[in-house]
Amino acid sequence: MRLSRYFLPILKETPKEAEIVSHRLMLRAGMIRQQSAGIYSWLPLGLKVLRKIERIVEEEQARAGAVQLLMPTIQPADLWRESGRYDAYGKEMLRITDRHEREMLFGPTNEEMITDIFRSYVRSYKDLPLNLYHIQWKFRDEVRPRFGIMRGREFLMKDAYSFDLDQETARHAYNRMFVAYLRTFDRMGLKAIPMKADTGPIGGDLSHEFIILAETGESEVFLDKSLLEMPIPAKDTDFWSDLSPIVESWTTPYAATDEMHDEAAFGALEEDTRVSARGIEVGHIFYFGTKYSDAMGAKVATAEGTEVPVHMGSYGVGVSRLLGALIEANHDEDGIIWPKSVAPFHVGIINMRPGDDLTDPVCEDLYAKLEAAGIEVLYDDTDSRAGAKFATMDLIGLPFQVVAGPRGLKDGVLEVKDRATGEKEMLTPEATLNKLTAALTD
Amino acid sequence: MRLSRYFLPILKETPKEAEIVSHRLMLRAGMIRQQSAGIYSWLPLGLKVLRKIERIVEEEQARAGAVQLLMPTIQPADLWRESGRYDAYGKEMLRITDRHEREMLFGPTNEEMITDIFRSYVRSYKDLPLNLYHIQWKFRDEVRPRFGIMRGREFLMKDAYSFDLDQETARHAYNRMFVAYLRTFDRMGLKAIPMKADTGPIGGDLSHEFIILAETGESEVFLDKSLLEMPIPAKDTDFWSDLSPIVESWTTPYAATDEMHDEAAFGALEEDTRVSARGIEVGHIFYFGTKYSDAMGAKVATAEGTEVPVHMGSYGVGVSRLLGALIEANHDEDGIIWPKSVAPFHVGIINMRPGDDLTDPVCEDLYAKLEAAGIEVLYDDTDSRAGAKFATMDLIGLPFQVVAGPRGLKDGVLEVKDRATGEKEMLTPEATLNKLTAALTD
Repeated sequence: MRLSRYFLPILKETPKEAEIVSHRLMLRAGMIRQQSAGIYSWLPLGLKVLRKIERIVEEEQARAGAVQLLMPTIQPADLWRESGRYDAYGKEMLRITDRHEREMLFGPTNEEMITDIFRSYVRSYKDLPLNLYHIQWKFRDEVRPRFGIMRGREFLMKDAYSFDLDQETARHAYNRMFVAYLRTFDRMGLKAIPMKADTGPIGGDLSHEFIILAETGESEVFLDKSLLEMPIPAKDTDFWSDLSPIVESWTTPYAATDEMHDEAAFGALEEDTRVSARGIEVGHIFYFGTKYSDAMGAKVATAEGTEVPVHMGSYGVGVSRLLGALIEANHDEDGIIWPKSVAPFHVGIINMRPGDDLTDPVCEDLYAKLEAAGIEVLYDDTDSRAGAKFATMDLIGLPFQVVAGPRGLKDGVLEVKDRATGEKEMLTPEATLNKLTAALTD
Repeated sequence: MRLSRYFLPILKETPKEAEIVSHRLMLRAGMIRQQSAGIYSWLPLGLKVLRKIERIVEEEQARAGAVQLLMPTIQPADLWRESGRYDAYGKEMLRITDRHEREMLFGPTNEEMITDIFRSYVRSYKDLPLNLYHIQWKFRDEVRPRFGIMRGREFLMKDAYSFDLDQETARHAYNRMFVAYLRTFDRMGLKAIPMKADTGPIGGDLSHEFIILAETGESEVFLDKSLLEMPIPAKDTDFWSDLSPIVESWTTPYAATDEMHDEAAFGALEEDTRVSARGIEVGHIFYFGTKYSDAMGAKVATAEGTEVPVHMGSYGVGVSRLLGALIEANHDEDGIIWPKSVAPFHVGIINMRPGDDLTDPVCEDLYAKLEAAGIEVLYDDTDSRAGAKFATMDLIGLPFQVVAGPRGLKDGVLEVKDRATGEKEMLTPEATLNKLTAALTD
């Protein structure tokens, strides 16, 4: 993409309403724009990252056997009356009346609708296990939206729902999502730790939050150091095999959020294995049994011919929130440092003197060859000042920068900078292409 | 995808509420489910097609220089007061009050918000031309939603907005979208004809509807036969060159919707060049000058340093509607016939006897090899009746079907059926793989 044809509205000044670093950097890097309290437009650079996060989530959901559909944003109130949550949900639910005075709402979550879809079509144990998910915009009318897209009102969530015949198979469904989440966050270059969560009145031990570690995280978390080195399940993990050894290895060492923290148990660990850190919740998985299937009559016939309510779980990932979490975990004083897998572009090329006989052909050639190799490039072909060009590239945080200046090119070299390490090398155009291709393709 | 792990809720009976063929077939093929009047869930098969349509639209928008962003669904009422449309829009606008009694709405279109984004960041003619677009769910509270997703309330639209310094450059922006639309619909295997549309009080000749020809189309259209053979602009068309010769060649021959039809002009054509047909509107492009930039103060500085209101156009594609239009244009009595480029899967493999020593290994091997070649396969590994399996495959309309039965495999052959022509061939597994790979990859 040529910057001269792109839309990247960089802000020079730090917007004063932004309290946390990810909010500040997203506004400054022209990734988002607030349209009203807690409601944002995703500008081109922000949308690119959002889509990359979505693709990773989708690939790992598919690997774990979840099937994607898409439920609408607007739901009828009557569905929520069946579960009893229409009144219980309170003011966070955005309630709407249509032109025929029908009561509707902008979905904050989808347990009711997915249960309705399930009961409409599925009758037999033969159709189980089933896990249906979607990635859709939700609305929660927070009293005081803040922290940019980290606590917005309109936000993008992946929510999966599992349907199983009994608790045992439901546990396997739960384990599949548990493993999928470990892989999902790892692929984004994040350190995510599953931590036991409060299951509320239903009880049981099948609820975990996935917490990203980041120095500027929203809350304190406590964990056993061994979790930091725990291996991530491989790409070829057989999701239809018994996954409980993996889940056990991840849930045995101590790990707790502030809310669930047990000072005594944590204190009993060897001192040098105790880690306290800051974290950000990006996922939550939950087995809730027959809560909705009982209330809404979602039953299946067993092999013996009796009808039983189906066992369900739900599995959320805060897709838009992850963008903020990624920045909290990956930035320095100059801006964002994107992990390769979610970077909006992989390489930024800076032409120091557009129109120059030396810089133009080298930049155009490198741009064309990188793109042909499947590497996404943002090519700064504008006539901005050099200082502004460098600052913008550091701010938007692409993994590599290539600077083409007349002086270097007289000696036949480009400057190649690694954004994460700051390391710079002077390389010929050919060596630059080889280095970047090797670093950025599999 | 193994059908045993997919969610494809086929309906045996034709739902009586469905008045048109695309609605009937989408319900029967398990592509959509109505959640309330004019509001649908996109079941897995429907979502797959929707995403393929989106990808084609995105690729062609990018080729034409449009840059993608994403505006939220919920908009503040105040923006619409600035343009005067808050009151003018009437009951089709879904109006919402949030918990703080602020007036909001579910966006039916985005002229106001994009103009707001533009005026917030863009100050100079140097940043033009600019075309920003998004693909987002819209809501129009139709009195009587009908025809399935063809006239729903919550629907997916691509809407692009161009910003130019004057009318002449705005015309070039218009032409870029005109050419992009010809390519977009052609890639979906559709015959789309641009037809002059009413420009309302603004006047001028810069508004066209793109009408898909389909026997079961919603309205009558009239055109010169030469348009049916008009060449589509090539992939390597230079969008930054003068496109007016292309646009003229497409707009000179007679073509009109019912509303704009001129019986005398049509009658003056040679009799054998007059075509009257049925059509479905799937796109609408529109130059509206400074209507919104005047009202909302979206100005840019010219090279001479004066400030002028920016010239705008808007360019819509009915993304979810296209799915219905595609089915109206491509079906027979047995079901849908997907064009390759938008088919949810390319090949359906039917294992006539899952568990059989002969059929299982051949199916598994073919399935694995096709997928490895980048061909998407729906593998029916279920133990349904043969008749039901055939009917389902015909109904969902994948371009090719492969039937693996014990009898054929005793002779070492599979049956390969072309869904569009109905032609069947008996081929060895190797010849099947070669044939499908050749037919389905570039």
